[in-house]
Formats: sequence, structure tokens, C-alpha cells
Amino acid sequence: MPNPRYAFEDFAPGDTAEYGDLVVDRDDMVAFAEEYDPQPMHLSEQAARSSMLGELIASGWYTAALLMRMNCDRWLVDSTSMGSPGVDSVEWRAPVRAGDRLTVRSEVVAARASRSRPEMGVVSFAFDVVNQDGVVVMRQVNAVMFGRRDAGAV
Amino acid sequence: MPNPRYAFEDFAPGDTAEYGDLVVDRDDMVAFAEEYDPQPMHLSEQAARSSMLGELIASGWYTAALLMRMNCDRWLVDSTSMGSPGVDSVEWRAPVRAGDRLTVRSEVVAARASRSRPEMGVVSFAFDVVNQDGVVVMRQVNAVMFGRRDAGAV
Repeated sequence: MPNPRYAFEDFAPGDTAEYGDLVVDRDDMVAFAEEYDPQPMHLSEQAARSSMLGELIASGWYTAALLMRMNCDRWLVDSTSMGSPGVDSVEWRAPVRAGDRLTVRSEVVAARASRSRPEMGVVSFAFDVVNQDGVVVMRQVNAVMFGRRDAGAV
Repeated sequence: MPNPRYAFEDFAPGDTAEYGDLVVDRDDMVAFAEEYDPQPMHLSEQAARSSMLGELIASGWYTAALLMRMNCDRWLVDSTSMGSPGVDSVEWRAPVRAGDRLTVRSEVVAARASRSRPEMGVVSFAFDVVNQDGVVVMRQVNAVMFGRRDAGAV
């Protein structure tokens, strides 16, 4: 395996990026809901008709999963990531529909060395998932632990 | 369709419940990771060997999806839920492994009528996902919007 490309030192507060280009597949979206979030508005056009919005929309957890996929593809798998302690917040701001084309806008909001574990640092990101109309459908703030280049992680 | 069983009025701060009984299926856990979170520690025993924990563990998003499933099965699908504005926090506290038996402990932390929308109220929950050893593997705090019984939702 080659060394990962991104380590703690590669993320500085204020850094921004845009990436991802993922078209929401209707059947994959529904299959996710059948397995993990079987609420009527996520299951079929017909079942959704009497729901609040009256139309088939993605589970918010599916949107979160798609963001994770886009993060993995763009940088996470090619990094010294040591996992995440958790998520600071998730806002589901607008519906995601089958056929939507999603991209990510990310910003580094904080980066700090760990005091207790000098081999790593923690980076906080704000991720906006944006649809083809420029609407932010989900905002997520979360932290990722990275190995440090100066501690020999790369 | 019969009327849903649970409405806004059925949730009061301090209410607790325990439910769910779900054994983590190794292949389902890996299939989720292949699709949405293809980091080595989630993909196979072998790929995980050189990761931080050295063993195959679930994606945190998979654990979140399993919590959603247990919530749907126990009460969410049989309620006046109008969806969720988002999640206040997620903490992934301990690894989830194939074969783990997971349950949920929930607590209502707040319940307030909506000022702008008298037909609904918002309930905040704290959910602990607990494994067979009594270890809290994930804590999540999030809000759900419910139709009100006294506004004719049921």
C-alpha cells in the first residue's frame, strides 16, 4: 500500500473544497429505507402520497451515508484517518429526491493537536451537501482524528 | 390504515424506554460499508488488521442506521411523526462488531409545542445503543416533529 496522501497537517482552518457528483438512484434510495428507515415517505411514491410532503424523499440517514461515500472517495480513504469520535450536528434542510445530483462543499472549521495523544490531531469539518439547484439539503459538522505526518504517520 | 398509536402528547420529559434486540449481521455490516463507508476497518477482517483497532468494526453510520431501524420498529412508524429537522449530536463511544446484540435505551429530554405550527410539537430524545455487555456503543440526541392529538393528528 502506498502512503496515504492526506495527514493532519494537510487540514487548516478556513480550507474549503468542492467535490462529489452523485446522482441519487431511486431504487438504491428505497432499498436503504426498506432496510433501515421504513417510513412511508421513504418507501414508494404511493406510500408517500399521504405524508407531510406528499412525495417520495430520501431518508436523512441515506443522505448522510451518501456524504460519507463522497468523503471516502475524495479524501478519507486516502488519509491517515483514525476514525471519528462522533458528529456535532446534522441538519436536514431540504428534501432529497430520486434523480437529484449531489455535491459536497466542505470547510475546515478547526484543527487541533491532541494533548493526550501526540501521534494524532482532530479536524472539525462543516459539510454542505448541495443539490443541482444549489440548495443545501444537509449540513453536517463533524470531527475526524488523523495521524500526524510529523509523528511518522505517513 | 388505522390511526397511529403515538402522538406528541405521548412523550413527556423524563420518559424512558428499553427496546430492540438486533444481532449485527457480519455480511450486512460489510455490505453497508462497501456501499457507503469503504474504509479498511469496515471492509474485511484482513483489511482491518493494520487499522487502529486491528479488527473488523461497523461503520458508525451503520450503527446509526440500525438505531433508526429499531426506532421505526418500536414506535416511529406507528406515530404521527412528521420527520426530523436534524440531529443534535452523535457519539460513537465503543466499537460495534459482527455478532453484537444491540438494544436501545431512550429518554425524552424535552417536548415543546411549536409556536409557529400549532398542529405539531417537537420532542428531543437521547438514545443509547447498548451491546450485550452493557456497553453504550453510540449515544445520539435528536429531535422528532410529531402531529398533536389535540390538533386532530390522530
